[in-house]
Amino acid sequence: MHDDIKFAAILSFMGQTRDRFQVWGPPYTLQEKVQRAAQVENLAAVEVVYPQEFADVKITKKLLDDAELLCSTVNVNIKGDPMFHMGGLTHPDAAVRAQAVAYLKEGMDISVEMGCNMVTCCPLGDGHDYSFQMDYIQAWGWFIEGIREAAKHRDDVQLSLEYKANETRSRIIMGSATAALHVCDQVGLENVGVTIDIGHALYAPETPSLSIAQLHHAGRLFLFHINDNYRNWDWDLVPGSVNWWDWIETMLYIEKVGYDGWVVSDVMPGRLDAIQVLNAVGRSITRAKNLLSKVDHNDLWAAIRSNDAMAAYDLFYKELGLD
Amino acid sequence: MHDDIKFAAILSFMGQTRDRFQVWGPPYTLQEKVQRAAQVENLAAVEVVYPQEFADVKITKKLLDDAELLCSTVNVNIKGDPMFHMGGLTHPDAAVRAQAVAYLKEGMDISVEMGCNMVTCCPLGDGHDYSFQMDYIQAWGWFIEGIREAAKHRDDVQLSLEYKANETRSRIIMGSATAALHVCDQVGLENVGVTIDIGHALYAPETPSLSIAQLHHAGRLFLFHINDNYRNWDWDLVPGSVNWWDWIETMLYIEKVGYDGWVVSDVMPGRLDAIQVLNAVGRSITRAKNLLSKVDHNDLWAAIRSNDAMAAYDLFYKELGLD
Amino acid sequence: MHDDIKFAAILSFMGQTRDRFQVWGPPYTLQEKVQRAAQVENLAAVEVVYPQEFADVKITKKLLDDAELLCSTVNVNIKGDPMFHMGGLTHPDAAVRAQAVAYLKEGMDISVEMGCNMVTCCPLGDGHDYSFQMDYIQAWGWFIEGIREAAKHRDDVQLSLEYKANETRSRIIMGSATAALHVCDQVGLENVGVTIDIGHALYAPETPSLSIAQLHHAGRLFLFHINDNYRNWDWDLVPGSVNWWDWIETMLYIEKVGYDGWVVSDVMPGRLDAIQVLNAVGRSITRAKNLLSKVDHNDLWAAIRSNDAMAAYDLFYKELGLD
Amino acid sequence: MHDDIKFAAILSFMGQTRDRFQVWGPPYTLQEKVQRAAQVENLAAVEVVYPQEFADVKITKKLLDDAELLCSTVNVNIKGDPMFHMGGLTHPDAAVRAQAVAYLKEGMDISVEMGCNMVTCCPLGDGHDYSFQMDYIQAWGWFIEGIREAAKHRDDVQLSLEYKANETRSRIIMGSATAALHVCDQVGLENVGVTIDIGHALYAPETPSLSIAQLHHAGRLFLFHINDNYRNWDWDLVPGSVNWWDWIETMLYIEKVGYDGWVVSDVMPGRLDAIQVLNAVGRSITRAKNLLSKVDHNDLWAAIRSNDAMAAYDLFYKELGLD
Repeated sequence: MHDDIKFAAILSFMGQTRDRFQVWGPPYTLQEKVQRAAQVENLAAVEVVYPQEFADVKITKKLLDDAELLCSTVNVNIKGDPMFHMGGLTHPDAAVRAQAVAYLKEGMDISVEMGCNMVTCCPLGDGHDYSFQMDYIQAWGWFIEGIREAAKHRDDVQLSLEYKANETRSRIIMGSATAALHVCDQVGLENVGVTIDIGHALYAPETPSLSIAQLHHAGRLFLFHINDNYRNWDWDLVPGSVNWWDWIETMLYIEKVGYDGWVVSDVMPGRLDAIQVLNAVGRSITRAKNLLSKVDHNDLWAAIRSNDAMAAYDLFYKELGLD
Repeated sequence: MHDDIKFAAILSFMGQTRDRFQVWGPPYTLQEKVQRAAQVENLAAVEVVYPQEFADVKITKKLLDDAELLCSTVNVNIKGDPMFHMGGLTHPDAAVRAQAVAYLKEGMDISVEMGCNMVTCCPLGDGHDYSFQMDYIQAWGWFIEGIREAAKHRDDVQLSLEYKANETRSRIIMGSATAALHVCDQVGLENVGVTIDIGHALYAPETPSLSIAQLHHAGRLFLFHINDNYRNWDWDLVPGSVNWWDWIETMLYIEKVGYDGWVVSDVMPGRLDAIQVLNAVGRSITRAKNLLSKVDHNDLWAAIRSNDAMAAYDLFYKELGLD
Repeated sequence: MHDDIKFAAILSFMGQTRDRFQVWGPPYTLQEKVQRAAQVENLAAVEVVYPQEFADVKITKKLLDDAELLCSTVNVNIKGDPMFHMGGLTHPDAAVRAQAVAYLKEGMDISVEMGCNMVTCCPLGDGHDYSFQMDYIQAWGWFIEGIREAAKHRDDVQLSLEYKANETRSRIIMGSATAALHVCDQVGLENVGVTIDIGHALYAPETPSLSIAQLHHAGRLFLFHINDNYRNWDWDLVPGSVNWWDWIETMLYIEKVGYDGWVVSDVMPGRLDAIQVLNAVGRSITRAKNLLSKVDHNDLWAAIRSNDAMAAYDLFYKELGLD
Repeated sequence: MHDDIKFAAILSFMGQTRDRFQVWGPPYTLQEKVQRAAQVENLAAVEVVYPQEFADVKITKKLLDDAELLCSTVNVNIKGDPMFHMGGLTHPDAAVRAQAVAYLKEGMDISVEMGCNMVTCCPLGDGHDYSFQMDYIQAWGWFIEGIREAAKHRDDVQLSLEYKANETRSRIIMGSATAALHVCDQVGLENVGVTIDIGHALYAPETPSLSIAQLHHAGRLFLFHINDNYRNWDWDLVPGSVNWWDWIETMLYIEKVGYDGWVVSDVMPGRLDAIQVLNAVGRSITRAKNLLSKVDHNDLWAAIRSNDAMAAYDLFYKELGLD
């Protein structure tokens, strides 16, 4: 794997996964999940979910240390607990909202213990399924206030917001890259930024590279989750397996904007073997990097800046040996 | 029509329309379009396109005066002219970008002459069709700069940005309500705001009422375009003809946030009779308002704020006489 | 509830449900699920899943009898068992394919015991997630053969095929109403027909009433599942809660084609109270029927047949008291 | 270009094109369109629209002969004429329906004169925009009858049905590959088959290769239109420019099923240079074929048939030199 890539993966996808109709794999323990992650080639870190995977922070840290894995990020889960089923930061009950904020703060503290100083949070429960099910004005205010209060907790930790259009709610209130950016604008604190998940971008529907450009322009590109899908749902497939050109372009912009953080796999192996799938994710990164390293970037950007997509594709194809 | 509704329509839809494969109706003159608009019941104003419908501002104004129609807004078209085919505010040629800004400024001046002091602009050409066809970093910077420069031209005119996910480009760079809000945040001027088109919201994909809440929260809700679609494309159908509950909810929030501007039909009659369709748009507004006036709003908001959508629907159904 | 409506519900939705990230409710026993179903107003039957809810057919039958519920249909599950994770009728291993067919036959036999003589099957596992993951030619042949073999098992039971575009596979090979119809055409047996699920139709993307018309035209409309969504995913919401006019039109066509089978709720209560949600489903049926009973059907069909949608809407609005 | 590829293009895209908001290029004459087509590398034929491009069949034939271009297909347009704005084969007026059938018959006769003996027809007007705008039962019957009547006109001409989910109507009644197949099943004539347009398949939403397999299985794959899009609309982009892997898979299946007909570009150049874009289409075909010729097909099909997509991708990547 290229030296400038810091490859990580969401730890929970090394365990049992499920959807509405099926359960895949046995109920792996935390230790087993870590050991499985350790078998993935070139994987240097894992993103760990709070509170589910931090019953005891010291134990989690020890497991990672023993496996020679870093903690890339603490992923704060404010939707899974039944308390949060009707929302976390936007729940009508102030006590629940306070709990969601508390989770964020606790996750921030733990991220310092884990040495990464970054939490990411995808507020999947903060939305609605039906019309007339949420006072959007109230909810939007609460959401921004909650993020602000959590971010103020300590400025040595980055709080990275992961947007998503829907799932598990039919509509999530922070649904796009610019929704997250506007939250940052409203919160007005330097340690709040955005996690871009390629798949979430694709079905936002966004052009992932454009979203990266927008986040970079505002100085808010904090974290990068990778996967792929069919632009209709968060299928969490291997990056580049569907939208190959978007994947190449995305990696081009990741380089261009000088992103030097973790490249975190958010691929769900589902019915396939998790370790094999994660290895395929790693290969997909390497392949994109290899292609980008072959083309002349002066020629490439000249084509792009003159809106000549056909010329740009030709530059890539020349290196693929298909002409 | 209810007293608090100021009903307007986009003038160009009273003329000949077309899509990729068909042309509907004869090539109506400007005068004929105005006269047809004047036949729509309760229509008080029209949104007029610059430059196409302002070959001579005085003539356009005279035609409207004669028809006793106001000008609700000047719609600045920075995509139709062949010069803009590869972009307006984001065109790689600085001269074209300057021309797009000039159009906005000229539209602003004309809006003062027309007595509305508001322009709206949907930058449909500022996007891309292929990967590698646009330097998004450069383009996004140019876009924000262009809007800022235009807005600074005069602070007595509101510059309202109409977002859209795609069409005519496969992707437009200002694709969502929050993209437009973030542009406002970046520009930092009070006279820049957002036009929400229900149809554009629906297939963004947004919950229109949530977008209204977000725009209102930021003080940027400038203009309201109405229509409907199947959440996959900007079909520009009669509001409420597909997404009835969204339409009711949207009108509820329009009231709630105290919007007192124009309610502009952005419905494309296409193969139907334009005047009959516009009358149907008017009836749809009235019907939504009538329903909202029947329900007890204390009960309604109590249901909404306790996340009890089923109770809210029941309140409406009780008034519809269907139980 | 109207006399001509036979209201049923999928039993499993009265139990614990889950999605990728959450689990809702406790793990209700079969008995508890039946008892909960029995509390739903006007519910006359349940659709029961084979094999999961038929560990002992006699016990299941007894539970239903005791609760005075009929069995509307046996829903044969050929995707949930780990054996079927890479496909049921299209699995590359002939033994697995044989097992899927065996399940269908066993379900058919049980449906006779349960007195409904109908199975429905939605082959959610028969599809693919990635390109190059399935030999479509082979798979399509196997699928048709499997259905034929099962249907031949006995001609006194109706085998009803429920199509779906995706979930749990990114693509399911029988993805539309006409895909199911073409399977029927290929199989060539009278006892094979189609289950239309409104939600599956909406995001196929189909016009549900058109699909009903197509199924009716071919004499293959066997079963009717009801719910609603945002045309992007199978959200399984209360029918009419999003696409109100589609719901009214659907019930109009259900009447028109003389469908006299079960109207089966396929609504997932998720985070809400299942019994309350199911009662709302029942009310939604009643409300649609009430509206349809108010309009003059001669006028309505005259409007429809002259392509005058606006006139048709007006007929409905007149009855809603909103003009 | 590979010997087994017969490259054609829709002639009208060599002329002026437009969408709802723009017009691209001057109004090229028929002669100019043919001459432009003749400049496209490796292009051997054009698909010509009846009646618009056949004002005089002899002249059209002469123009093609002079340019050394064959006529691949006659594309019968039963939506563009104002008469067809509310439908062609499903129009409520029997005289209009008869005219649509007459067009098909005339197109068939002309196709014999042109030496291709094949017409293709995409009935874009046969659908609806609103609920209650079409009697689907009546319409579906008329549609099938109309196709049958046209097909019976002469059995030496293939009548190929091109399905599409929407555009220009919000919903078209023959919206998917299997909808077209079911029409074939109902019509029951050997000379009726299906045109698959990759883009229409992608946003149906189908897996194009699966649709090809289904059409092949039924012996109904008549014609192949190529392009690409973002799975949300018929953007008519260069094939492989978005969905690269689908494009490779599609060409794999085209080979596999032994398709030996025309490969017709249905790419809309829009704001780009038509000849350059068509040349890019040609290169895209060659590149896909080149890649397919490099991999070991025994290995490839072994991977596919064992559902091992990762292994299949690896086979391709090995040839791309990116590992």
